Amino acid sequence: MLECIRIVLIGTSHPGNIGGVARAMHNMGLADLALVAPRCEIITQDSISRASGADHLLHQASVHATLEEAVTDCTLAVGASARSRTLPWPMLTPREVADRLPGECQTPDSRVALVFGREDSGLTNAELQRCHAHVHIPTNADFSSLNLAAAVQVLAYECRMAWLSQQDAAPAPDADDELALVTHEELERYFEHLERTLITIEFHDPAQPRQLMARLRRLYLRARPEKMEMNILRGILSATEKAAGK
Amino acid sequence: MLECIRIVLIGTSHPGNIGGVARAMHNMGLADLALVAPRCEIITQDSISRASGADHLLHQASVHATLEEAVTDCTLAVGASARSRTLPWPMLTPREVADRLPGECQTPDSRVALVFGREDSGLTNAELQRCHAHVHIPTNADFSSLNLAAAVQVLAYECRMAWLSQQDAAPAPDADDELALVTHEELERYFEHLERTLITIEFHDPAQPRQLMARLRRLYLRARPEKMEMNILRGILSATEKAAGK
Repeated sequence: MLECIRIVLIGTSHPGNIGGVARAMHNMGLADLALVAPRCEIITQDSISRASGADHLLHQASVHATLEEAVTDCTLAVGASARSRTLPWPMLTPREVADRLPGECQTPDSRVALVFGREDSGLTNAELQRCHAHVHIPTNADFSSLNLAAAVQVLAYECRMAWLSQQDAAPAPDADDELALVTHEELERYFEHLERTLITIEFHDPAQPRQLMARLRRLYLRARPEKMEMNILRGILSATEKAAGK
Repeated sequence: MLECIRIVLIGTSHPGNIGGVARAMHNMGLADLALVAPRCEIITQDSISRASGADHLLHQASVHATLEEAVTDCTLAVGASARSRTLPWPMLTPREVADRLPGECQTPDSRVALVFGREDSGLTNAELQRCHAHVHIPTNADFSSLNLAAAVQVLAYECRMAWLSQQDAAPAPDADDELALVTHEELERYFEHLERTLITIEFHDPAQPRQLMARLRRLYLRARPEKMEMNILRGILSATEKAAGK
């Protein structure tokens, strides 16, 4: 599914942002980067530095004269947009875009384009109207313009989350032995030992219980101790009894 | 809810990253930035340029010598981490962290810390062990290191999504006073008292620690004691010391 997703950047003007986009893409497992009429060099010291090891995506990136050309083989194109436009368009959240991906990417040659505009002015109305839907990243109304690489990061993250939940059919790995939870019986034996010890150190008076044991039960039941932790807790009780001279 | 979230950066070395973090935070409606032992200047041309209009967050940022100091009033601290550590810790996805926020931020003075490490080496084990849980942003296994501002962007985005979905929900009931969670500082004082007591009863040998305190930290951080429970736990330690004839 991730191999079906193309990130399209239109008219980018800062090489550092292209590098940051490459890094965000590679982090999330995306590889298909298309640049439409970039307004800067692609391979620069700044773009390579910000790519931070993902600069192969810069070298592999396709360059196009128009959006049209960059998305010609795509079955779905979604344009990143601020919320309000004169002509209302289907508007999705990043999560809703991601939710649609499994259905869109059923064959290896399916292609979905996520289209991002210029740093200063975003996508034009003509470009937005070439997209099936628009995606709006929810933001602070007073400060709504995300950095380009940050916007790609959010969308790419949602793509990866959707891809991961698709993998969830796979069986979970065996639990680590150390992480095995204790049984009910082991926990009850601990509570008995704890109560005896608290009486020994004169912290607990069964004649005046004041819900003490109930409160301690609630605490340890909530913590759900593992076997190794239970061994430690039992060991502390034994050491306490010994130190108290019992 | 968003005003309860503190972004904590430890040992950041690039001013541009701090600026990028400020922009990501302000875009998502977060404002509380804490810097622990930064390894660079905070207000520079680069940080102001990357903040891109959010530089008031740089000026407002609090600066601390230690993580301890930065999270002292927080009831929940979540550390960003790569997946595997020698001692497994509760591990959450960014979405799971966000899902917990409405419950965590019921009063205006609740504070939740999201803690991010150094660009080159992340958080130390000692720092991670001061956190209740760890958060792992799912990444490409071959290229897992996100840019610092990109990592903050993903978490801040999930915080905003959780906040937005809370706007539809009914108001939360008043929190029971007894159920007030303890602060980080109270918990740390408990761990100090616990360690002293375990040495007194000869259960713990600081010369041969065998991860004992780390395991106990993990248990009690997971249990998230309430104030009343903490009073009981402290009382047990005092009674133990007394019974041991100290």
